[in-house]
Amino acid sequence: MIKILNSSQKGFENEFEKILLRGSEDISEVIPKVESILREVRENGLSALLSQVERFDRWSPKSLEDLSISPSECKEAYDALDKDTKEALHIAYDRIYAFHSKEKRQSWLDFESNGSVLGAKYTPVERAGLYIPGGKASYPSSLLMNAIPAIVAGVESIFVCTPTPDMQTNALLLAALHICGIKEIYKVGGASAVGLMAFGVSKSQANPHIKKADVITGPGNIYVASAKKLVFGEVGIDMIAGPSEIAIIADSSANATYLAHDLLSQAEHDEMASSFLFVDDENLAKIVAEKVEAILDTLPKKHIAKSSIDNRGAIIICKDIAQCTHYCNALAPEHLELMVASPFELLPSVKNAGAIFLGTHTPEPIGDYLAGPNHTLPTGGSARFFSPLGVEHFMKKSSVIYFSKDAISTLGKPCAHLAHLEDLDAHAQAVLARMQITKI
Amino acid sequence: MIKILNSSQKGFENEFEKILLRGSEDISEVIPKVESILREVRENGLSALLSQVERFDRWSPKSLEDLSISPSECKEAYDALDKDTKEALHIAYDRIYAFHSKEKRQSWLDFESNGSVLGAKYTPVERAGLYIPGGKASYPSSLLMNAIPAIVAGVESIFVCTPTPDMQTNALLLAALHICGIKEIYKVGGASAVGLMAFGVSKSQANPHIKKADVITGPGNIYVASAKKLVFGEVGIDMIAGPSEIAIIADSSANATYLAHDLLSQAEHDEMASSFLFVDDENLAKIVAEKVEAILDTLPKKHIAKSSIDNRGAIIICKDIAQCTHYCNALAPEHLELMVASPFELLPSVKNAGAIFLGTHTPEPIGDYLAGPNHTLPTGGSARFFSPLGVEHFMKKSSVIYFSKDAISTLGKPCAHLAHLEDLDAHAQAVLARMQITKI
Repeated sequence: MIKILNSSQKGFENEFEKILLRGSEDISEVIPKVESILREVRENGLSALLSQVERFDRWSPKSLEDLSISPSECKEAYDALDKDTKEALHIAYDRIYAFHSKEKRQSWLDFESNGSVLGAKYTPVERAGLYIPGGKASYPSSLLMNAIPAIVAGVESIFVCTPTPDMQTNALLLAALHICGIKEIYKVGGASAVGLMAFGVSKSQANPHIKKADVITGPGNIYVASAKKLVFGEVGIDMIAGPSEIAIIADSSANATYLAHDLLSQAEHDEMASSFLFVDDENLAKIVAEKVEAILDTLPKKHIAKSSIDNRGAIIICKDIAQCTHYCNALAPEHLELMVASPFELLPSVKNAGAIFLGTHTPEPIGDYLAGPNHTLPTGGSARFFSPLGVEHFMKKSSVIYFSKDAISTLGKPCAHLAHLEDLDAHAQAVLARMQITKI
Repeated sequence: MIKILNSSQKGFENEFEKILLRGSEDISEVIPKVESILREVRENGLSALLSQVERFDRWSPKSLEDLSISPSECKEAYDALDKDTKEALHIAYDRIYAFHSKEKRQSWLDFESNGSVLGAKYTPVERAGLYIPGGKASYPSSLLMNAIPAIVAGVESIFVCTPTPDMQTNALLLAALHICGIKEIYKVGGASAVGLMAFGVSKSQANPHIKKADVITGPGNIYVASAKKLVFGEVGIDMIAGPSEIAIIADSSANATYLAHDLLSQAEHDEMASSFLFVDDENLAKIVAEKVEAILDTLPKKHIAKSSIDNRGAIIICKDIAQCTHYCNALAPEHLELMVASPFELLPSVKNAGAIFLGTHTPEPIGDYLAGPNHTLPTGGSARFFSPLGVEHFMKKSSVIYFSKDAISTLGKPCAHLAHLEDLDAHAQAVLARMQITKI
């Protein structure tokens, strides 16, 4: 049974502190193992990858060719899809593409009255590596959500790594790779894949060699997350993601059945997933708790969902919607549903959330597949500072500065003054030389 | 003497490979020390900070009050400034503020024909911690460049940590803190400061307690950089910065004296700084090398600059400007000057650079102080994927999704179809419930 807390109860703040800490996975235990995998890949390239695939995925590739999935395999998988599946994937692709296109930043240049020009130049990264999990959590939707922002950004070279446990590939993932036009695909998973993407494989280690990525994105387990953290800085990453989670703010206008469904849609992901309902109506809280139990029994993944709901879920009764929002902002959930009578009126009060779903007809799963925004979202409270995966993760900015003779003649003096104050005389000299003077 | 390489020489590619690796500082040696400092701060809060300041900065604070710099100290430092300095700092503030304001992203909502609404909501982080180095590299310009983007973003709570070696504070830094209106300042440096900002100090560890930051930015040495990498994910960071660097692309129209000044302005920062000139004119290369030697002798920091120039600088003679640009894109320098006859025509070819300075009258130092764009830039080749510090580092995005009854009735079916294919039945149920059906 999902636990019910009341914000007016004694000890509630302590209980809530524990909920806030939900995201603190301890990665220190896996770090040495991940470091050793990464080191092997960096030092031994292809031969390390081959032996790691054998070790972790239980089959024996002998060459880079064995590790590769060909575009023709992907096309075959796509051609074999039924009409409904093709259509659903294309609807998702088109809607995700359209949304992300609106978020793409444009370069700009501005002219100042003194003749100088300032601006920002946005360019795509040259090469992006996408990690897509294999096995039970191998989702075509993950591929769409990672590939499309890179495509919209204009990344020229996009490649994918995905594990093939016991040599199994996921036909839907292959079909999605075809739809995205991705032609470079390696059957490598976990920390090995992060190593491959971050370091590449040099000419001396394989023929043909594999160029390293500039940016690595994609979901994964604790090994993938730890490896991404370790290579961060040598390469760009999207974020460090943990277990999935949902929070719902609901008032008495909300439909209890819908609330129960939405809590469970998160819980079925993973025993570590968390589902929270903040509600100002004690009676509704009880009804939802009962509905969750009733629906649980009907789910194919009821054991996973029950464990998540019982151990990590909570319904929190608050004195009003303002208090619900206050606690929810502190939680900074990955997904947030506003199931209240006037969700757009509540929206300005929401500060921290990865994605916000408004109103009765916007169940969170619609955002997982085809609403348009990305489903790769910050977890564990990191929505306080991380953003959803987006086009910006596959682009970078260069500042642009042009000074006219006029501009340097007026601004050179204060600039050289500041340089002198910081004891950087060569800085001052470089500026003064343009003014044809040696001292200010 | 700065070394001169020629791209047509045998072995050049190997030489250039070494130059590309310039950024690979090995942080593994300092990691255990940094981990232990961070652990102390996390576990012992204020008492750890007090003893670490004693250990690293050689004075003995006894309380949180001892560690704090008051707004009145900052105001006094500001009031004591001469007129030229005040004016220069205000010009810098205003120009940096104006540029960053243009880069601030606005929230948007779009209405679709099916009645659904999609959008992106940009909000500032609640609390930002800025690290400003102390001692010889304590620069008021660093404070302006870190604080102003946070101010433009709308961050409500901004605090600063800066070391005070031998209890010395930098009056210019205090004045800049006054200008920025920052009132919460701690005399804590290095990895200790990163710990303070990332974990805060809890109620049980100090009174008043210090709230942790959502985002940490600011330059620092290898200890600061390593600490930032270790806490990344628990807290947002700007980037992991290494030694400063400049690259210049020049053709025969360039002024040799200016080129020499600009190479040296980078070299005086640090013995680990790097200065590169890519040039298609062999004669100009030789003249610049001689001018560098001549000007070196006139610099107060000639020993630092000479070491940087001799050990890490290079002039690279290329067959044409296209080749200069090709190598420069591979280098992905922090600062890039285009000292060619038509710099705006070359600009589209530049792919990777933190900041780009165009033409004769735009020496790099103008960007360090008051051109407007940020001087905190990606180093060591990370301009392939990192961007200059900006307003976006102090904001985060939430996706916004509202589906109308009409929208879910048409898009619910393909959504539930995809959920079924991914074996996520609770996801499908949540969608189908809104359509008043149980199966598709």
